[in-house]
Amino acid sequence: MPVATLLVSCRDRTGLVAALSDFVFRHGGNIIDLDQHSETAPGESTGTFLMRLVFDTAGMRLDQQGIRTAISVLAQSHDLTTDLSFSDRRPKVAVFCSTVPHCLYDLLLAQSLGDLAGDIVAVVANHDSLRGVAEHFSLPFHFLPIGQDKLADEAKQEALLTELGIDLVVLARYMQILSPGFVSRWQGRIINIHHSFLPAFVGAKPYHQAKERGVKLIGATAHYVTAELDQGPIIEQDVARVSHKDDVASLIRKGRDLERRVVTRAVRLHLDRRVLVSGNRTVIFG
Amino acid sequence: MPVATLLVSCRDRTGLVAALSDFVFRHGGNIIDLDQHSETAPGESTGTFLMRLVFDTAGMRLDQQGIRTAISVLAQSHDLTTDLSFSDRRPKVAVFCSTVPHCLYDLLLAQSLGDLAGDIVAVVANHDSLRGVAEHFSLPFHFLPIGQDKLADEAKQEALLTELGIDLVVLARYMQILSPGFVSRWQGRIINIHHSFLPAFVGAKPYHQAKERGVKLIGATAHYVTAELDQGPIIEQDVARVSHKDDVASLIRKGRDLERRVVTRAVRLHLDRRVLVSGNRTVIFG
Amino acid sequence: MPVATLLVSCRDRTGLVAALSDFVFRHGGNIIDLDQHSETAPGESTGTFLMRLVFDTAGMRLDQQGIRTAISVLAQSHDLTTDLSFSDRRPKVAVFCSTVPHCLYDLLLAQSLGDLAGDIVAVVANHDSLRGVAEHFSLPFHFLPIGQDKLADEAKQEALLTELGIDLVVLARYMQILSPGFVSRWQGRIINIHHSFLPAFVGAKPYHQAKERGVKLIGATAHYVTAELDQGPIIEQDVARVSHKDDVASLIRKGRDLERRVVTRAVRLHLDRRVLVSGNRTVIFG
Amino acid sequence: MPVATLLVSCRDRTGLVAALSDFVFRHGGNIIDLDQHSETAPGESTGTFLMRLVFDTAGMRLDQQGIRTAISVLAQSHDLTTDLSFSDRRPKVAVFCSTVPHCLYDLLLAQSLGDLAGDIVAVVANHDSLRGVAEHFSLPFHFLPIGQDKLADEAKQEALLTELGIDLVVLARYMQILSPGFVSRWQGRIINIHHSFLPAFVGAKPYHQAKERGVKLIGATAHYVTAELDQGPIIEQDVARVSHKDDVASLIRKGRDLERRVVTRAVRLHLDRRVLVSGNRTVIFG
Repeated sequence: MPVATLLVSCRDRTGLVAALSDFVFRHGGNIIDLDQHSETAPGESTGTFLMRLVFDTAGMRLDQQGIRTAISVLAQSHDLTTDLSFSDRRPKVAVFCSTVPHCLYDLLLAQSLGDLAGDIVAVVANHDSLRGVAEHFSLPFHFLPIGQDKLADEAKQEALLTELGIDLVVLARYMQILSPGFVSRWQGRIINIHHSFLPAFVGAKPYHQAKERGVKLIGATAHYVTAELDQGPIIEQDVARVSHKDDVASLIRKGRDLERRVVTRAVRLHLDRRVLVSGNRTVIFG
Repeated sequence: MPVATLLVSCRDRTGLVAALSDFVFRHGGNIIDLDQHSETAPGESTGTFLMRLVFDTAGMRLDQQGIRTAISVLAQSHDLTTDLSFSDRRPKVAVFCSTVPHCLYDLLLAQSLGDLAGDIVAVVANHDSLRGVAEHFSLPFHFLPIGQDKLADEAKQEALLTELGIDLVVLARYMQILSPGFVSRWQGRIINIHHSFLPAFVGAKPYHQAKERGVKLIGATAHYVTAELDQGPIIEQDVARVSHKDDVASLIRKGRDLERRVVTRAVRLHLDRRVLVSGNRTVIFG
Repeated sequence: MPVATLLVSCRDRTGLVAALSDFVFRHGGNIIDLDQHSETAPGESTGTFLMRLVFDTAGMRLDQQGIRTAISVLAQSHDLTTDLSFSDRRPKVAVFCSTVPHCLYDLLLAQSLGDLAGDIVAVVANHDSLRGVAEHFSLPFHFLPIGQDKLADEAKQEALLTELGIDLVVLARYMQILSPGFVSRWQGRIINIHHSFLPAFVGAKPYHQAKERGVKLIGATAHYVTAELDQGPIIEQDVARVSHKDDVASLIRKGRDLERRVVTRAVRLHLDRRVLVSGNRTVIFG
Repeated sequence: MPVATLLVSCRDRTGLVAALSDFVFRHGGNIIDLDQHSETAPGESTGTFLMRLVFDTAGMRLDQQGIRTAISVLAQSHDLTTDLSFSDRRPKVAVFCSTVPHCLYDLLLAQSLGDLAGDIVAVVANHDSLRGVAEHFSLPFHFLPIGQDKLADEAKQEALLTELGIDLVVLARYMQILSPGFVSRWQGRIINIHHSFLPAFVGAKPYHQAKERGVKLIGATAHYVTAELDQGPIIEQDVARVSHKDDVASLIRKGRDLERRVVTRAVRLHLDRRVLVSGNRTVIFG
């Protein structure tokens, strides 16, 4: 008995909730969770309607294709941007990593505990050193080094993603910058973990920057990858308190704890269909 | 152009969101914010439907009385528990205090900054020492001491509350325990701030208890007052980190900062109609 | 029976703690609190010795002048940078503000509760609107507007500070940028509260910037003022969680709560002599 | 070049810091970190002297046995309780677990990243299900079931601990209550993780209790095990925010994240010799 999750954004207008909830009701579904908010951004005259609607399809007189068609008709007539998914179609996730294991462990442990509404089906790495971690969790490990001809090597990665039917790529401290082409083809489907509280400390060595600047909190930020480095829509952030007794090594250790929690939370939010990208920001239905 | 806020709880059933949103739409209203969740408590077979619905009544073809009647018809036909309010009827609040001023200042400052969706109209105290605070914020100060005949003195307090048309009483470190009669007559309409992370450290001198037990975090809890001391439905809580360098005086100072923030947040949640009491728990629509 | 607090920084070397603690002991004092740490910054070969030493002078056979002389001899022979203060010489503080009252209230309330190891003796403002707040707390309010001739107007402010023997200036949402001359004359003695998590969102309208960037946490930063705007040594920071339901007005409200707590904590740290400025960073002895 | 860490507690008295720092200096050592605080508990007339002293022994003219003897002479003459350790003698840790892996993973990952100042040398379990986790991290797994004759089975566990020279036992969600004898023989050397913010929700099923009580924060507490269940000295605690949307399953998931972080932090604090037990409380030198 799958559950459907519908994300909606559009220009605000009356009757949208009524139309959508009536649709669910008329066909015998039951709304489990509904979160709707209309926001008017600074400087805008009309608001944006934002909604997440979760409904049980068990008693519905439409099959999934029927629901999909009906929603798409509604979307056209009301000029909605929609994203519909069913819980029995679990998204497939590939985790990209290099040599540091903490984010990888966190994601694979979450999966093995049944905490994710999706399936990590592959670990892809440009170094061979984390093979044992993937294998311990019974996951295929794909060692795809990135050499001189980066585009050719990336093509192999993308071919693998296509072959496996991947829906989401997670860069779990993957120490390569993806090419603009890769990024644009996977827009909204690549999550990166940056080891600072963005937009503070963009770029390399953020813990060194943090130590240098003498901040009292360090952070981590999970965001969708866009062409501009460290500028994509932010999904989740968190911080931890530090002091002058923390040297860079200790900042890195505290940062690891932040990074893994933040990336796993962001992946969970994405897989739970709680993230709606609106321009360069995300709306998180918490 | 007032905004209406409707809180609903009932046994879960299909069609409830559709019925309520359709009602708003048919009469020309616009839903601004809707948060609905169905929860099945541990050990229960049927879920509870919980909803907060905020709608703009500007374009509606019903006046407030009409809306109220229609909602009450819906409530009866669908067996709903409802709470309907309109933003142009601002709740009236009385703050009770004794001698410590920090929570009182916080509430009155919030009010003077326009941060509250209600009006603090009176300060009631069993000591005269905070009169200057009330007067500074241009509020009437009612010095009503509690003596030997507590019930008679409380009767004066209640008479004042009735006379002023008070909707909510906030115990801002008010150092008296209200009688069961008072509490039962004002059920769900008295907020207290307790200076610990309940249910830890019930009763008197919680900071001494915290120091004694050697906890690493201290807390504060805002809750509705019920007949059983410190046992009412919790609205809001927060904590702060402490160490062995904090003596009791320093715990009290850190605690003050928690208490005032927590009580003001709880009052704001209540006045924003974001709190629904369900049994001995609250549902907070965040 | 005053308590002495000594802050020390120097190139790390053996025997420093022994020399200093032996000095206290030999003259009959008692160490109450000692926090010492040696740090080697990234890229440096020799470490920095950092210490805060608090000792009770009650039983000492030296008077304050004697202690001061002895410490200064020790400082010279060991090449130490020292800062010595006695608890019976309470620092005098001036609070600068403009029109928003929340930080001012927080500081004055802390003072009236006896929470500060110093005395706010004056409120200085370039608008007249917060006069009532100062007077409520029985503090002189100095209305010194800043007009076309800013340097001349600042000269009046500085003359007042000198006349009052001010040790610390707190910019409590003071909406003027101090001239470089003012700043340099008061180096390490002006604390500002910036309404963002620095170094994110330098400059004006940080809450608008935060909304625009879609961050999930907003922050506030208290720092010493230096010639470069928002770049001075950071004393204290904190953050609060936000969501898409927060519009700019709500971010500003949440931010106010952060700002006042952060500025008051920073002032308390400074007055407790827990802050040692080392280059462009602070060392906080917590 | 090992580093020595000395923890000291005693009745407060003048000259203690001088005596101890002078000892280090005279023998050619260098103090790296010193944290000293004197606290007077509520109701007590004399204070307690608490100190953590870390010094580099590289240049010292005493070997470790010499240092140990000298400290013990000092301890006797000054009536000190001392705990001296050297960084080249890394404590040996045994992790006890049952079937849930999250705390075990966290500890073993911390170890494999070089984050612990000690060595986990054995995993002991009363179920066989986590064998693969231990083996993945190349650690011996000891399956020692607890049956009807609990004391006999515990005797086998203790024999193993003795044989391995274990210094610290960590109960990483080990689902057995140790017998009073075991606990008393290992006093101050067993860390347990309790899945609530103690003293709230003592005993079984704390997340169910938390859901029932409607708290807004859930917590986890790491403490030394004493004969009284959940009453031992607290080492570390943390909390996470929850809402009515969290069912018990979701509280358990959020709790897992807390538990593993809190237990690993507590173990790190213990191994870094930052924990001093004083009565039923701990002093944490942060």
